[in-house]
Amino acid sequence: MDKIEHIGIAVKNLEASNKLYEKLLGKPHYKIEEVLSEGVKTSFFEVGPNKIELLEATKADSPIAKFIEKKGEGIHHIAFAVENIEKEMARLEKEGFVLLNKIPKQGADNKLVAFVHPKTAGGVLVELCQENNNKV
Amino acid sequence: MDKIEHIGIAVKNLEASNKLYEKLLGKPHYKIEEVLSEGVKTSFFEVGPNKIELLEATKADSPIAKFIEKKGEGIHHIAFAVENIEKEMARLEKEGFVLLNKIPKQGADNKLVAFVHPKTAGGVLVELCQENNNKV
Repeated sequence: MDKIEHIGIAVKNLEASNKLYEKLLGKPHYKIEEVLSEGVKTSFFEVGPNKIELLEATKADSPIAKFIEKKGEGIHHIAFAVENIEKEMARLEKEGFVLLNKIPKQGADNKLVAFVHPKTAGGVLVELCQENNNKV
Repeated sequence: MDKIEHIGIAVKNLEASNKLYEKLLGKPHYKIEEVLSEGVKTSFFEVGPNKIELLEATKADSPIAKFIEKKGEGIHHIAFAVENIEKEMARLEKEGFVLLNKIPKQGADNKLVAFVHPKTAGGVLVELCQENNNKV
């Protein structure tokens, strides 16, 4: 794990939250991106070497919609940058962590991603992110 | 806001969680520190320029004990590094955020800290951290 790549925050309304987080962080978001497969629209803010990712559900059965229904708006996951996602996934499985996807998938912000089940990681939804060099 | 200084994670048992996070992050914690005023024992892990802070309650009425009672173990707060905490606190108050402490207080890891009320920050407990140069 090289650094915290981003913190994912579940929000009800991306437009309103963009304004709120612009005030909080003192700078505007630098991009909006929809991830169809996850049913989310995301917005990214830079904070030095790290990012804040706001997540709004685009369909009723998306994981973000379910999260907000259960827990309300707030921190949804921590994403760590890794150099070699497959190597890191294998290491974590060997250590007893359960991965939610067995092979890396395409995430937002041009990343290959994998998630660790929060039940095996102290209640924390952990994402691994590797820069996807094959795509621009 | 210069970077994510750390992510605070509420845990029931610091000893067990230290072992779990050592496996997750691939390296051991580098220090344990008790903050009497907050009723917590903390453990820190480095992840590149960022840190993970595990928080175990040391008394029944500590904020961490109440958090775990209500929500279970998991992510408790995001802390941002700032250069001048008083200036940042004044900026946030002007923007409409409510601060939980009106003057900076001594936090773990030799920091001056202040918290933003999650009700004014999209359900996220936000901490500001300034390196405390007056103490070693």
